[in-house]
Amino acid sequence: MVWVSAVILLAVLQYVVTGLIVGRARAWYGVAAPACVGHPKFERWFRVHQNSLEMLIAFIPALWLFGWWVSPTWGVAVGLVFVAARIIYTAQYVAEPRTRQFGAGLSFAAVLVLVIGGLVGLVRIALTN
Amino acid sequence: MVWVSAVILLAVLQYVVTGLIVGRARAWYGVAAPACVGHPKFERWFRVHQNSLEMLIAFIPALWLFGWWVSPTWGVAVGLVFVAARIIYTAQYVAEPRTRQFGAGLSFAAVLVLVIGGLVGLVRIALTN
Amino acid sequence: MVWVSAVILLAVLQYVVTGLIVGRARAWYGVAAPACVGHPKFERWFRVHQNSLEMLIAFIPALWLFGWWVSPTWGVAVGLVFVAARIIYTAQYVAEPRTRQFGAGLSFAAVLVLVIGGLVGLVRIALTN
Repeated sequence: MVWVSAVILLAVLQYVVTGLIVGRARAWYGVAAPACVGHPKFERWFRVHQNSLEMLIAFIPALWLFGWWVSPTWGVAVGLVFVAARIIYTAQYVAEPRTRQFGAGLSFAAVLVLVIGGLVGLVRIALTN
Repeated sequence: MVWVSAVILLAVLQYVVTGLIVGRARAWYGVAAPACVGHPKFERWFRVHQNSLEMLIAFIPALWLFGWWVSPTWGVAVGLVFVAARIIYTAQYVAEPRTRQFGAGLSFAAVLVLVIGGLVGLVRIALTN
Repeated sequence: MVWVSAVILLAVLQYVVTGLIVGRARAWYGVAAPACVGHPKFERWFRVHQNSLEMLIAFIPALWLFGWWVSPTWGVAVGLVFVAARIIYTAQYVAEPRTRQFGAGLSFAAVLVLVIGGLVGLVRIALTN
């Protein structure tokens, strides 16, 4: 689980850095808290951060449980695909929201593999015991 | 922890499916990213997804730790109540936001049982050792 | 991991209580779901809750993994700093959003220590084995 844990923390670090950028973007684009709208570029960073949060709540427990019960090696592989997909997604969304499909789809697919793979693995374990 | 893990992944799957519906709902109701408002039905699906996220950040660690330290069997039971409550909540909120009280209250109660039950269990363990 | 788990549940409890206040604040300030804006005070509580959510998705896995692989004692210490920082942040943000810097910065610093400390610890473990 050492590498599974490292990939989880890598995804968290990526998210925390995005959060730092959102904080800076408030100053760059003149959007004072508690407002979350007001400048298209700020809204893009804000939405990337929100979307990363929405993905992590599924990704983190799914990777942890997939690695724990099914396969840490495959978990790390799919987890690294997820981290790469989030970098692509962020770059695309900030440049032009309409081009975000590839990164969004790939990160979503990685999460689905972990969630469904994890559930299938757990059912097999439950049936074996 | 096999069944505790399965219930966590079930709740995550439910959330991921809601996320897929939100993505589709952008097209159904003509709400282009990064906007999150613009059509009442889209806003309901969006809010259901957000609310599920808000609940999962408490539910997942609470169920994991309650199952780990207190009782996996009771954890699974309360966890299944939570998953059922989320289905009720989603159906009610999308139909009419004002009728969401039962599902919202039941899922909140399930989380509270896990959090407070987990804390009480941990204090008892700490006092015993 | 008993105390690490207790600190995680404490942070979750704090978040759940904030969520209860947001629910009440809808009635206090007359902001009916699914709207999330409409009264400055409601928006402050809503944003505190959202910000807590944004922090917890990083804090919970980071504290769990830091405690697991690096040091449960240091994890508990940094975790308690985080919980205290969130209380300060909430009080400051609700009173006046512009004064939230100290609580926000301290909770962010605590998360960074756990994430980077956890990653460094994992790399050292991986290199040792």
